[in-house]
Amino acid sequence: MVGMSGAYGGHSNGGESRAPKAAVVVGAPPPEMEMEMAGAMGVVHKVAAQPAQSTASKMKGKVKETFFPDDPFRSFKGQPLRAQWVMAARYLFPVLEWLPGYSLSLFKSDLVAGLTIASLAIPQGISYAKLANLPPIIGLYSSFVPPLVYAVLGSSRDLAVGPVSIASLIMGSMLRQAVSPSAEPMLFLQLAFTSTFFAGLVQASLGILRLGFIIDFLSKATLVGFMAGAAIIVSLQQLKALLGIVHFTTQMGIVPVMASVFQHTNESIRWPRFFWISACAPLASVIVSTLLVFLFKAQNHGISIIGSLKCGLNRPSWDKLLFDPTYLGLTMKTGLVTGIISLTEGVAVGRTFASLKDYQVDGNKEMMAIGLMNIVGSCTSCYVTTGAFSRSAVNHNAGCKTAMSNVVMALTVMVTLLFLMPLFVYTPNVVLGAIIIAAVIGLIDLPAAYNIWKMDKMDFLVCLCAFAGVIFISVQEGLAIAVGISIFRVLMQITRPRMMIQGNIKGTDIYRNLHQYKEAQRVPGFLILTVEAPINFANTNYLNERTKRWIEDESSSGNKQTELRVVILDLSAVPAIDTSGIAFLIDLKKSTEKHGLELVLVNPTGEVMEKIQRANDAHDHFRPDCLYLTTGEAIASLSGFAKMATP
Amino acid sequence: MVGMSGAYGGHSNGGESRAPKAAVVVGAPPPEMEMEMAGAMGVVHKVAAQPAQSTASKMKGKVKETFFPDDPFRSFKGQPLRAQWVMAARYLFPVLEWLPGYSLSLFKSDLVAGLTIASLAIPQGISYAKLANLPPIIGLYSSFVPPLVYAVLGSSRDLAVGPVSIASLIMGSMLRQAVSPSAEPMLFLQLAFTSTFFAGLVQASLGILRLGFIIDFLSKATLVGFMAGAAIIVSLQQLKALLGIVHFTTQMGIVPVMASVFQHTNESIRWPRFFWISACAPLASVIVSTLLVFLFKAQNHGISIIGSLKCGLNRPSWDKLLFDPTYLGLTMKTGLVTGIISLTEGVAVGRTFASLKDYQVDGNKEMMAIGLMNIVGSCTSCYVTTGAFSRSAVNHNAGCKTAMSNVVMALTVMVTLLFLMPLFVYTPNVVLGAIIIAAVIGLIDLPAAYNIWKMDKMDFLVCLCAFAGVIFISVQEGLAIAVGISIFRVLMQITRPRMMIQGNIKGTDIYRNLHQYKEAQRVPGFLILTVEAPINFANTNYLNERTKRWIEDESSSGNKQTELRVVILDLSAVPAIDTSGIAFLIDLKKSTEKHGLELVLVNPTGEVMEKIQRANDAHDHFRPDCLYLTTGEAIASLSGFAKMATP
Repeated sequence: MVGMSGAYGGHSNGGESRAPKAAVVVGAPPPEMEMEMAGAMGVVHKVAAQPAQSTASKMKGKVKETFFPDDPFRSFKGQPLRAQWVMAARYLFPVLEWLPGYSLSLFKSDLVAGLTIASLAIPQGISYAKLANLPPIIGLYSSFVPPLVYAVLGSSRDLAVGPVSIASLIMGSMLRQAVSPSAEPMLFLQLAFTSTFFAGLVQASLGILRLGFIIDFLSKATLVGFMAGAAIIVSLQQLKALLGIVHFTTQMGIVPVMASVFQHTNESIRWPRFFWISACAPLASVIVSTLLVFLFKAQNHGISIIGSLKCGLNRPSWDKLLFDPTYLGLTMKTGLVTGIISLTEGVAVGRTFASLKDYQVDGNKEMMAIGLMNIVGSCTSCYVTTGAFSRSAVNHNAGCKTAMSNVVMALTVMVTLLFLMPLFVYTPNVVLGAIIIAAVIGLIDLPAAYNIWKMDKMDFLVCLCAFAGVIFISVQEGLAIAVGISIFRVLMQITRPRMMIQGNIKGTDIYRNLHQYKEAQRVPGFLILTVEAPINFANTNYLNERTKRWIEDESSSGNKQTELRVVILDLSAVPAIDTSGIAFLIDLKKSTEKHGLELVLVNPTGEVMEKIQRANDAHDHFRPDCLYLTTGEAIASLSGFAKMATP
Repeated sequence: MVGMSGAYGGHSNGGESRAPKAAVVVGAPPPEMEMEMAGAMGVVHKVAAQPAQSTASKMKGKVKETFFPDDPFRSFKGQPLRAQWVMAARYLFPVLEWLPGYSLSLFKSDLVAGLTIASLAIPQGISYAKLANLPPIIGLYSSFVPPLVYAVLGSSRDLAVGPVSIASLIMGSMLRQAVSPSAEPMLFLQLAFTSTFFAGLVQASLGILRLGFIIDFLSKATLVGFMAGAAIIVSLQQLKALLGIVHFTTQMGIVPVMASVFQHTNESIRWPRFFWISACAPLASVIVSTLLVFLFKAQNHGISIIGSLKCGLNRPSWDKLLFDPTYLGLTMKTGLVTGIISLTEGVAVGRTFASLKDYQVDGNKEMMAIGLMNIVGSCTSCYVTTGAFSRSAVNHNAGCKTAMSNVVMALTVMVTLLFLMPLFVYTPNVVLGAIIIAAVIGLIDLPAAYNIWKMDKMDFLVCLCAFAGVIFISVQEGLAIAVGISIFRVLMQITRPRMMIQGNIKGTDIYRNLHQYKEAQRVPGFLILTVEAPINFANTNYLNERTKRWIEDESSSGNKQTELRVVILDLSAVPAIDTSGIAFLIDLKKSTEKHGLELVLVNPTGEVMEKIQRANDAHDHFRPDCLYLTTGEAIASLSGFAKMATP
């Protein structure tokens, strides 16, 4: 019954024979197995332990990976002190990296790009400020100071900084719950500045404390659903106002203007060739509609207009920051939500364009830059700003080279603030609504949603929940629900990890999941299980029950020849284990022994091996002869052993 | 320069040659590599896709693994209808499984065990009721009805049911925050019954909805810390009372009694040989102290006594359930916390002894049993009960065989309630305090805490937070903090997954982590990376930056001969991937191509492979020639390719 199956031999130990210790006599599997272990080796390798490391140095390593995964100071090593100072200054002020080498040709590109985004920023700034229920001029102020701050501190070359629709919407709707912007405009403005201050504080703190990974919890799916929901809310709000007025003014030609704005802004992201049209459309709409209102005196026929705006630059507003306990909770909450949302947008936009142009954007540095920009902004009559996707796309397409394009934009806005404000007197509010709708409609990314549906149904559920939550409950709760589901899903993956039975792929030494690989075959007498998750408190009960049921099924079904003798637990895909997990392994070892079975562990990774060893210090549960480096070696070694034991 | 290194050949394809398709001509690695690929094969295996499955059937599978991991109805399949009914009845009422075969010899064992635990249950019942600020008799009521219900519904053979210290403490302290038990005893009692009702409802719902995994989130570390903290709070409370009275009565011999109780109850868990002494110690203390008080008339000398208790069985209390909105929030919260805590204790105790005697306890069934027992209890003047660890240990040591020992205990308590109540008139309250302290001191499990410290510093931190939180903040917040940290830790493992560089173990086809295996060697021209976590929204940014930094480091450092050509990403340990993860892979593919490198994926598991295929449907990013089954095959195949490409 026991024969050598021929396709087996010491072939693999060719040239060098400095094989590791513990060579075990390997017998062949019984012939009825009809299986050759192609690469099977005559040697059994030891599972190495992690090199000894003190708790402190391990902690240091973990802290480093958690907070400094990008190792920002690695180029500092071995440099003279003076060079380190220069590098530190460059690290803190990225402007020092590009300004010394700045040339006229670069400036030409930046000038064109800066003027282009200014033509977009001015009408959008006015519109978004209205979306946040703030005076239109605040939107222009916010397009002047923050871009200058960002140009000094920011590391992205493509980000166009200014107010954005989503953060404006959130700030407006959250503050409106407590204070009416029409009844108490001054208080509302104060709350907006204070919220902006807190938003900046949150953003800068996340960057300084290097907690940038927190925004990673807003997944793509969450954002797609959230943006679409927010866009629909904004559009409906604006449309209500629009339709009310269109009713009076069908002859005003607003519909075609709106339609053209729609068309083009929407195209801007997809067909960069036409981006000039889309970039100029909002300004053109404003100019045309303002002229029309002025010529027809439409303000007397029911068209509401912006009205007179004072010339002049941002006034200081630090005296307007309101830390009154009555509103402190509200402003902190608003700051937190708008801060995180706008940070997510800014960092994502920065990363997108950095990856297009193949340079690196440091997430934590960006957070500090955006945060400082908002803190400075809150003291200079600005509300929350960040890098806007649509404007950055235009900036990129217009050929910007450095953050200088933001400076050009800011200077253009400055000129507008100083001299051109009277021109906006007759601008109809309705065209601002159209600009907003045109901008936010582009946020509804149906292809992305379809793609998510195709790839991953659970992700789509997250997307849908964010969408429905924002529309039917509220902006912040919709977001919280979506993040909650995302995290719950991650936890469920750990609570119910995949466990698989593996089989041998014929003619090889490879063991793979039986379900996925139809050509994989069970090895008689062995039950090869893999776990694909960290083993911890959240899943030990499940793993325990699941494993025991499998062993039970196996033990009861087999006949004498294929009787189960060995359970192999492949730990290759177990990155970590905790005390509960070790207790599970020990419990499994004992219970398999009770059933007369042998349990061996295959390929425990560093951390797991370390804990197994520590468990051994006390009770020697897992001796070296039940630890193997590969499933193949375990089977080869244990087949021989089993034969010797049963002559 | 290109030579065949000899230790290489088609040896491994011995006997049968039905090798999979797509055989690729494999050249040898350059001789300067000085490495033999021992088990290297002449064939390249295809990565199989998961068998096609509809979304619905996949969902079904996931729902089944999540909620029915134990597959409770698998034995029902293929049985006639009548047998299925019998099986269903047995499933719902486990008593039907053991009662028909019940014998006199089994009853003898259960009788002894039942009497033993009754002697423990009576004094403990009275004491714990006082801990919950309830009349002592409620503790006895709670040791009568719930054990009878459990005997019918429960599947554990060793669980001794009744009031427990921790749940009593929590209920008492949570309700006391709103209502004073001394000023409004009736209202307090009503709230206790209502909380018990909600506790039962929560427990039964968790069982029926098969959400039992929720209690898994209370890890061992959390519980160790929590129990110790609670024990210290309880002890200090009782000690304050004790010391106050000891001051008056040093001559009363209470200190030695207390000391003996201490000694023995403490020993009970560790030295089962003396468990008789420990089992009888509380009752003996009660008898001795009652006699002493009676003889010396100590109640006139400042010793507070229980006083007269009415004879009679539990009275119905459903009319006392209070669903008044004023207290609804409080009772629901109290019910939730005590319900989950006592459920955790009950299920953990059940599992512990089931594993000792090698039988199975169905977690969800246990939850339903404990939940129904508490719902019934709340209608019959009982407060929250569960399986107590100390009493179950005594039950087990006394040789119980079935849940009949609970029935014997209940009947003993019944006799006490009917006839023996006058005997407790002179029992001093101080001995009840001693009994409580003796019981809870055993909950401080220093060896377990030391073990956790030794195994896992983070787990110890969780333990410490639960301990400190319970002592310095409050019971429920301490618990919440500990659970929060545990979950945060799990999330951090996913946010910062381990990524490793692998090398070849000399003389084999095995590739392992360079850091763990000192004998592993880098393969020149290849960068072999492994990721050990699901790739999802929470870690794609990190993985992206980490990978790019490695590639950058590699590209810059190498000389011409060892120049980096191929990046191998081993996905063996990646159990799942989401849309963000797929986007990361595609982005990495594009960025490596931009650097003139090739990216290949090794061994994607079922779900990952499925999503890669779906991504391919749209844009064919990952053609079959960049998917390999093993790292060895990828290297063998690509070394050949590289050589052919650069003659």
